[in-house]
Amino acid sequence: MSEIRHLALACKDAAQAMFALDTETKRKLLHDMAAALETQRDAILAANARDLQHATAKGTQGAMLDRLRLDEARIGGIANAVREIAALPDPVGLVTRRETRPNGLEIERVRIPLGVVAMIYEARPNVTADAAALCLMAGNAVILRGGSEALHSNMAIASALHIALEKHDIPAAAVTLIEDLRRETMVELLQLSDIVDLAIPRGGEGLIRFVAEHARVPVIKHYKGVCHLYVDASADEVLALNLLVDGKTSRPGVCNALETLLVHRDVASSFLPKAAQALQERGVELLGCERSRALVKGLRPATDEDYAAEFLDLILAIRVVDDLGMAIGHIQRFGSDHTEVIATRNDESARRFVQAIRSAVVMVNASSRFSDGGELGLGAEIGISTTRLHAYGPMGAEALTVERFIVRGDGQVRHPQSRL
Amino acid sequence: MSEIRHLALACKDAAQAMFALDTETKRKLLHDMAAALETQRDAILAANARDLQHATAKGTQGAMLDRLRLDEARIGGIANAVREIAALPDPVGLVTRRETRPNGLEIERVRIPLGVVAMIYEARPNVTADAAALCLMAGNAVILRGGSEALHSNMAIASALHIALEKHDIPAAAVTLIEDLRRETMVELLQLSDIVDLAIPRGGEGLIRFVAEHARVPVIKHYKGVCHLYVDASADEVLALNLLVDGKTSRPGVCNALETLLVHRDVASSFLPKAAQALQERGVELLGCERSRALVKGLRPATDEDYAAEFLDLILAIRVVDDLGMAIGHIQRFGSDHTEVIATRNDESARRFVQAIRSAVVMVNASSRFSDGGELGLGAEIGISTTRLHAYGPMGAEALTVERFIVRGDGQVRHPQSRL
Repeated sequence: MSEIRHLALACKDAAQAMFALDTETKRKLLHDMAAALETQRDAILAANARDLQHATAKGTQGAMLDRLRLDEARIGGIANAVREIAALPDPVGLVTRRETRPNGLEIERVRIPLGVVAMIYEARPNVTADAAALCLMAGNAVILRGGSEALHSNMAIASALHIALEKHDIPAAAVTLIEDLRRETMVELLQLSDIVDLAIPRGGEGLIRFVAEHARVPVIKHYKGVCHLYVDASADEVLALNLLVDGKTSRPGVCNALETLLVHRDVASSFLPKAAQALQERGVELLGCERSRALVKGLRPATDEDYAAEFLDLILAIRVVDDLGMAIGHIQRFGSDHTEVIATRNDESARRFVQAIRSAVVMVNASSRFSDGGELGLGAEIGISTTRLHAYGPMGAEALTVERFIVRGDGQVRHPQSRL
Repeated sequence: MSEIRHLALACKDAAQAMFALDTETKRKLLHDMAAALETQRDAILAANARDLQHATAKGTQGAMLDRLRLDEARIGGIANAVREIAALPDPVGLVTRRETRPNGLEIERVRIPLGVVAMIYEARPNVTADAAALCLMAGNAVILRGGSEALHSNMAIASALHIALEKHDIPAAAVTLIEDLRRETMVELLQLSDIVDLAIPRGGEGLIRFVAEHARVPVIKHYKGVCHLYVDASADEVLALNLLVDGKTSRPGVCNALETLLVHRDVASSFLPKAAQALQERGVELLGCERSRALVKGLRPATDEDYAAEFLDLILAIRVVDDLGMAIGHIQRFGSDHTEVIATRNDESARRFVQAIRSAVVMVNASSRFSDGGELGLGAEIGISTTRLHAYGPMGAEALTVERFIVRGDGQVRHPQSRL
């Protein structure tokens, strides 16, 4: 048996132990994990220093290096995030439906954990604690495969989590960190379809495509967020400008940032110059269609590739549209099923937009930046799915469970002649 | 562009049209489909005669040939099944949760269709109408890839369904039947991850493994149903015998039939001889562990392969267990996550069984044969999932939808400094 299969089987056994845990025990476990992260702070910082040293030697700098860096405050933040997850409602055991059939069978739909969740992620070491805590709170065991840059930090964090698992007599394999980071080992992990119930890749499009290509286990993913704001003819102009500035500039590097502005032609001549001024003052580069370039000076022409791009930067593509239908058509063609916004005062336009757009999150008069598990009330987020299956949009603890059937009877048989 | 990609893209466009349909229109559409199946009866029977002739020439006979055969009554049955699906509650548009956030955002979780569902199935032509109707009722478009034995029957059924689609101005591609049945074409279909939202294979284990192996689109599958009945020390003996006979003999060829009987050692000497007599009278061949063979004459020894087998036949494997824990351990080792039953009068045993067993359906004092969409109140069934994701257990119309987020605001932004 290969090493990775061996590790994964131990994790599956641990999942069986996790399956039976009650809410109180899981909460205590997570609080003990948070405490262990704090008591193990020096070990984690020492490990992180090794990772930083390697990264610096490899020439990593700027934002990349900063994402890898831990300090006392950040470790405190990680521990507190685990405590917040411990306070979430427990999705496991939730009875979602109850029905008594004519033959007297009592049917319940009840949420249970998925089992073994494999997280595949890149640099940030906080994901190690976050993802583990959320998976465990939902009664799962977790296999963590982080990036090589953060390996020592991740190992130190996992060791801290193991202290808490041991205290509760739960196998350490409930949080299994993969230390063998070869690509072929990841591929093998992704093909353990008798063991792994779900793989969640988090990172750049390259990583996600690699996982999707090689996985034989179920994968929930999102490639990119090409989020649109459509400014309807009836939109409140100031409201629309606020949504635009917030969507594009408050944090351009994340998936719920706006990438494309669609403006109804009736308001384009009034709206676009103000929009351009507000954005250009904030350093946003603008690309536009022919009609928008006639209204605003200095726009570069936008190509189809631009309309399909997730810039993750202070760049915005603009298009003037004839009507709501053309806006919907544009989103259907170029969108990524993530988040779309309409600014409108017309209820019928809002209704039509919501009805025609199939994205995971549709906003009416609110910023795309609210497309986030915390902001949408999930408490914590393990990822955002643009896979239209199981979970669609931000995924919280509940998305790490599934409904099953419990049936109680008093001897019902399907065929009466079966009775002795 | 390949032919299959071309067909699938047309189906995706049709899915957009299906997405916007209201419940009344879908119900009328399905009633018109049922009527069209009846008015096209002669054409369907003529096509079926061709399939039967081919099958006979190839040497097909018995149950296989019977499953392929259509007649007036069976077509009436198929049409009525479509009418029953039309009467189901519409899962689309269902608001599953509603919350107002502290900042005033109104969040709704609302069910929407998956989009494009690909059904991969074997001989029975009734699946063509059933699966299409259920997919359409849930607002999806469907790609049907049936078996070669039923190709002409399936084409005639699809043509009838197209008559109804045309009447409602819905693209015929909403029900796309694949006529090119080469394996490489199926593989290509299963890799259209930008088009197909879900593939559901229905058929033998070979077909399902082939689909799982080659798919790059999400797959919901069940390989097999190795269903267990555990007779607890406290079980009502007659009740347990009834569940056993019903589970094993009422329809041995289906996935919710029992394959293994586990008996608590305290009641084995009383229960097993009665069980053996009742089953042997009904022609069931019995395999058993050493302890069961000491209690009942003429049992063949049961191997680990027998305990892992889905017999789909009048064969039962028996094992005497020391206690509930050993029964649970056996099911965890040999089970297939489908359906398990406990016969007990002890509430604590029932609770422990339900808590430890992770199968999709757990029955207390009821026959495994109730593990079926219709019997569990889903109205109709597109398949049974043993994938612990999205849907687990019998899947009805709701399993062909997913929840998304609709957010309504009045200009909320994430960062106050975004306001002009």
